[in-house]
Amino acid sequence: MHEITHASRTHDPHIEGHFKSSEVVRDIVIGLSDGLTVPFALAAGLSGAVSSSRIVVLAGLAEIAAGSIAMGLGGYLAARGDAEHYASERQREEREIIERTHDEEEEIYEIFEQYSVDRTSSAPVLGALKRNPTAWVDFMMRFELGLEEPARNRAHRSALTIAMSYIAGGFIPLLPYMLAEENFTALKLSVVITLLSLAIFGALKGRLVGTGWLRSALQTITIGGAAAAAAYILARLLNAHG
Amino acid sequence: MHEITHASRTHDPHIEGHFKSSEVVRDIVIGLSDGLTVPFALAAGLSGAVSSSRIVVLAGLAEIAAGSIAMGLGGYLAARGDAEHYASERQREEREIIERTHDEEEEIYEIFEQYSVDRTSSAPVLGALKRNPTAWVDFMMRFELGLEEPARNRAHRSALTIAMSYIAGGFIPLLPYMLAEENFTALKLSVVITLLSLAIFGALKGRLVGTGWLRSALQTITIGGAAAAAAYILARLLNAHG
Repeated sequence: MHEITHASRTHDPHIEGHFKSSEVVRDIVIGLSDGLTVPFALAAGLSGAVSSSRIVVLAGLAEIAAGSIAMGLGGYLAARGDAEHYASERQREEREIIERTHDEEEEIYEIFEQYSVDRTSSAPVLGALKRNPTAWVDFMMRFELGLEEPARNRAHRSALTIAMSYIAGGFIPLLPYMLAEENFTALKLSVVITLLSLAIFGALKGRLVGTGWLRSALQTITIGGAAAAAAYILARLLNAHG
Repeated sequence: MHEITHASRTHDPHIEGHFKSSEVVRDIVIGLSDGLTVPFALAAGLSGAVSSSRIVVLAGLAEIAAGSIAMGLGGYLAARGDAEHYASERQREEREIIERTHDEEEEIYEIFEQYSVDRTSSAPVLGALKRNPTAWVDFMMRFELGLEEPARNRAHRSALTIAMSYIAGGFIPLLPYMLAEENFTALKLSVVITLLSLAIFGALKGRLVGTGWLRSALQTITIGGAAAAAAYILARLLNAHG
């Protein structure tokens, strides 16, 4: 979830389009990868310990409700926090270039000195920025603070996208338990369709992000498989001693 | 989880220290907030539908196993992906400043033009960067691509921190079900201690991140409470019709 960059405040329409679609993709990836993995592993674990597929389905749906709200609402509040943080830092920067002009000038020199650019060479850039205060603030936001302006309405969209993807992913492993009477039959079917879904999802994600489809597919299968195996073994052990 | 910035490659030791501790804090926050929320909500949901607290504990522990592995391993692979992405982009940038020098020079002019800095003013910076190819690549990584060099061993540490925080958080809501015989008693106790933990966690997080402790506490309580209420209502409805 860390590998896709945040929205970039840039005037290049190509790059802007690229980053905006990345945000939606990132939200889908966040929701789907957890949605396919955790309800799958929980159902697998429970199926090794309880005989009734009704309880597996109940627990799975309760997990989907809990997980989608936790992730969606969590994403909403995080995105809103991002937007407020950006706005307050921007206000502070706007104040500082007026009230503490000298310090802010020094900060520009220091930014460039990190890249071995001496004061004489960076002075003309400072001069140009001082002629355009908005650009100066833009520059400080990005190059001093490393902050990008979040897209508008990002919080709502992000929350909905993550929650819906989680729900969509979570239903796949539960379907066999809803249809089959017997838990062990359902488990086998759930393992097959979920690992297949994880492979397809991983391959698509790999192509989008650029890590290579095969490697990405193996990674999503590994995460899902390891989580399910751990939950299954744990539930069986606890059940044997319970 | 979006609100804390990634590690910064900077020569200012103060800022560097600030960002590094943020990464650990961010991982703890990611693990704890989901760990306190999802197993809590799942247990609350199930307690409304099944009579045996043994099944609630089983499901809760299976969820903790699944969730901690999904988040930890997911975090590990994401961090490793970050590091590899940074390395490959850096290699490409190193090649391009030699093979496509003119294009890379144009890119520097374009970066500055976004901030209304004309070519005459940015030319001396370009001159200085050309005298130091490593600094030039550093500059392009940060200001063209917006990439920071990830900390070494970040992947392992990140995975462990997230998983351990998830487990620590997840045990809190399950404790009452392990101790109490009766599900409804356990549920009431679980709601009290988990909402209290969420409030303390939210308040601490708010102070660290700077959103204000009260507001942050209300947010974590809202997420946990909404997830638990939804899971509880859903499980009761399904149980009534099952």
